[in-house]
Amino acid sequence: MRGRIDYFFSPRAVAVVGASRRPGKVGYELLRNLKESFRGTLYAVNPEAEEILGVPCYPSLLDVPGEVDVVVVVVPAERVPAVAEEAGRKGAKGLIVISGGFKEVGEEGAERERRLVEAVRKYGMRLVGPNCVGVYVPKTGMNTLFLSRERQGYPQHGFIAFASQSGAFGSAVLDWAAMKGIGISKFVSYGNKADVDEVDVLLYLKDDEDTRVITLYVEGVERGAEFFRVLREVAKHKPVVVLKSGRTEAGARAASSHTGSLAGSDAVYDAVFRQAGAVRAFSMEDLFDLAAGLALQPPAAGDRVVVLTVGGGSGVMAADALSDLGLRVPRLSDSTVEKLRRVLLPFASPYNPVDVTGSAVDEHLVEAIEIILSSGEADAVMWLPYYMVPGITPELNGKFVERVRRVFRETGRVIPIVGVATGGSYTAVYAKEAESMGIPMYVSPERAARVIKALVDYGRWLKRVGYFEYHIEKFRRWFLA
Amino acid sequence: MRGRIDYFFSPRAVAVVGASRRPGKVGYELLRNLKESFRGTLYAVNPEAEEILGVPCYPSLLDVPGEVDVVVVVVPAERVPAVAEEAGRKGAKGLIVISGGFKEVGEEGAERERRLVEAVRKYGMRLVGPNCVGVYVPKTGMNTLFLSRERQGYPQHGFIAFASQSGAFGSAVLDWAAMKGIGISKFVSYGNKADVDEVDVLLYLKDDEDTRVITLYVEGVERGAEFFRVLREVAKHKPVVVLKSGRTEAGARAASSHTGSLAGSDAVYDAVFRQAGAVRAFSMEDLFDLAAGLALQPPAAGDRVVVLTVGGGSGVMAADALSDLGLRVPRLSDSTVEKLRRVLLPFASPYNPVDVTGSAVDEHLVEAIEIILSSGEADAVMWLPYYMVPGITPELNGKFVERVRRVFRETGRVIPIVGVATGGSYTAVYAKEAESMGIPMYVSPERAARVIKALVDYGRWLKRVGYFEYHIEKFRRWFLA
Repeated sequence: MRGRIDYFFSPRAVAVVGASRRPGKVGYELLRNLKESFRGTLYAVNPEAEEILGVPCYPSLLDVPGEVDVVVVVVPAERVPAVAEEAGRKGAKGLIVISGGFKEVGEEGAERERRLVEAVRKYGMRLVGPNCVGVYVPKTGMNTLFLSRERQGYPQHGFIAFASQSGAFGSAVLDWAAMKGIGISKFVSYGNKADVDEVDVLLYLKDDEDTRVITLYVEGVERGAEFFRVLREVAKHKPVVVLKSGRTEAGARAASSHTGSLAGSDAVYDAVFRQAGAVRAFSMEDLFDLAAGLALQPPAAGDRVVVLTVGGGSGVMAADALSDLGLRVPRLSDSTVEKLRRVLLPFASPYNPVDVTGSAVDEHLVEAIEIILSSGEADAVMWLPYYMVPGITPELNGKFVERVRRVFRETGRVIPIVGVATGGSYTAVYAKEAESMGIPMYVSPERAARVIKALVDYGRWLKRVGYFEYHIEKFRRWFLA
Repeated sequence: MRGRIDYFFSPRAVAVVGASRRPGKVGYELLRNLKESFRGTLYAVNPEAEEILGVPCYPSLLDVPGEVDVVVVVVPAERVPAVAEEAGRKGAKGLIVISGGFKEVGEEGAERERRLVEAVRKYGMRLVGPNCVGVYVPKTGMNTLFLSRERQGYPQHGFIAFASQSGAFGSAVLDWAAMKGIGISKFVSYGNKADVDEVDVLLYLKDDEDTRVITLYVEGVERGAEFFRVLREVAKHKPVVVLKSGRTEAGARAASSHTGSLAGSDAVYDAVFRQAGAVRAFSMEDLFDLAAGLALQPPAAGDRVVVLTVGGGSGVMAADALSDLGLRVPRLSDSTVEKLRRVLLPFASPYNPVDVTGSAVDEHLVEAIEIILSSGEADAVMWLPYYMVPGITPELNGKFVERVRRVFRETGRVIPIVGVATGGSYTAVYAKEAESMGIPMYVSPERAARVIKALVDYGRWLKRVGYFEYHIEKFRRWFLA
């Protein structure tokens, strides 16, 4: 292990080398973003300006008056090794090199990258990049992305960390997350990974209190054995969701010309992820669906899922989706069916799916969840409330979650609950409310089923490594507080 | 064939039997929705009111002064057969029975449903329902849904028809479509399918000029042989996308208690859909992703896909997603690579994916698409423009589509182009613009790949049944007009 890298995410002082006065240039837009959000001390380095955007400007790093933790570099590639040398002499701890023109452009660039790393090592610094978009941390305002706020949205603070090998994809994901209202604790894109890589980032995020779940986009991993060891250690403490591309021959070919990554055999990666307890995602939406679910809900102790629905058709689709993933949707026992019958409408279906029908009122769902949770026949619940139907009131979520809490306390047993809210704007408001109360909500049963499958797989792995109860306790402390 | 059913979708006069003065009641909300949108003559039947919401009210259907095409019935189930009798005597053509309490509630209800159908047949009427939400047609304002506009959004006019066995799911989908800006030509939910079913609806939609693509949600089909025959005939003329639930044992069990449908063997359905040229969807989002792509783009003549991307990581994921579905992403020929090299940046990747990189400007994408289309080496293109990057201007879509048109005209050859725009609000504006120009756009390469796969499969089937050129011509007339 090569020491902590906290300063990249919460530096006290940052200098931007290559700051520009020209709007549209990376050195201008980056400084503007940083100036707007960063809560520490900010310096700019540009020999031709005294200040830019109100940030004091110096001819070189060595002229900067105060201490500098992190140097952000946007000068052309040729000059980057010299800037690294200066940063070292200045006593900086970390370097974030946004500039491209290194390993990814061929042998000349690779030689340049070696000189850059040499300078960094010589002074005991750490390096993020080159050829990356760097770091974004809503909480500290640290932000080295260079797209203007007009073109790119920046998400609010949240509990999901996201580390991306690809800068463009990383930026697009942040932009999408901002639009979707998904919060981010830490974002980092490490580009060519000349120094800081997945291993360093995982270790850092393991201890980061703001991060409840870690998401990774990777094309290839260099330090394979160490990655596996660290991933396995981190996954004991927090869920790690990985989107690994270059899975197919065509994809691997593309990855090799994109980041020079050797994508490697996907079967090997798949085995590594499975053994290390990481959850595998297969698209951006999948990555964040899984992240939200794993962050908010406890792991499942088994694979029996009970579906509680207001819409019959959605119940059918839920049963299909769960079965497709190898989960069980068993018929409930006679005594549980009998209990449900007593509280539900006469034409409701009390088996599994438990279909309270579109004529249901709040209490049908609330009574049904109590019976389901108390039965001990469910390892997980998918609930599909259909907020739009006439009998459901705006108070449903509150009543439902309160009852869930009560039953969890009374029985001493907690299981994951994952929701589905198919619909438009009215529904979206209540889905968001349910999420704020701790129940992750998805637009379709197929997406919710993926999440339940991940909670089941993660639960099984946690049991094997002896960390299941640790997570149940963590959830209990949080959800029943 | 049992005659046309156009009047359900564009009636001249509609009577609502069971109209209510009490807000919140189905008979009130339905009348209010209809009153707000319907452009024909509207009557209400309620023995205790003279008018409701400004709609003239009559004690019985037989007291309504003018002709009535369609009678919408929301009275309790027991009274429905008698209302059907009256509707017949009144000379109505069609009945839409919203009320539940028929086959789905057991033997007594089934007997009631038989009496209802008897009355309908006796007078040569047709019946939608019972136990359904009926019809929604933005163009004519015909709307028998009963959720208030506060709880449910109603989509605008568009080119996608949607027929759903499930009313609740149908409503939720409309609500979702309204939020997403997806337009609908015709919607119908036929519930218990006591008379009008998929077969009737498919035949109607085949000739409906407003419908470019048909989407179906089905749990089970009764008239199997006829369904297959009609589906196959309709699919020659328009794409049909089917979301069939009850695919698994647990799903089939749920379907049987939901609509009493015998879901049947999924392998049989799968074979039927494949042989009939229908495209199978596996979630709501998938259904509408596929619908938009099949409506806007021509079928593909082969399975060679070229990826044109601004983001390297997304290019890798695109290659993976396409390969996962069995599509080919072949390296381009040396001469095409050479041509691309001449127009792209030196560090761009000219193989396949063609990665113009985040430093690209509009012209790189425009020149690249010309070379790709002219090469004859692509049967379909996935393009990933990344509108957010600095060099891409708001004019990109216009330039791109214009160039595509020009090359299509010059080479006399058209192929499908499907887009990916991962990002937030800024990106969404340009994605929408591209769609309005005829290029369907998706948030991730995985979703776009599903659409390309459908265009390839549909193209192969159309060639087999001799309708491929028909669709190419239709696209040419529309896109090159």
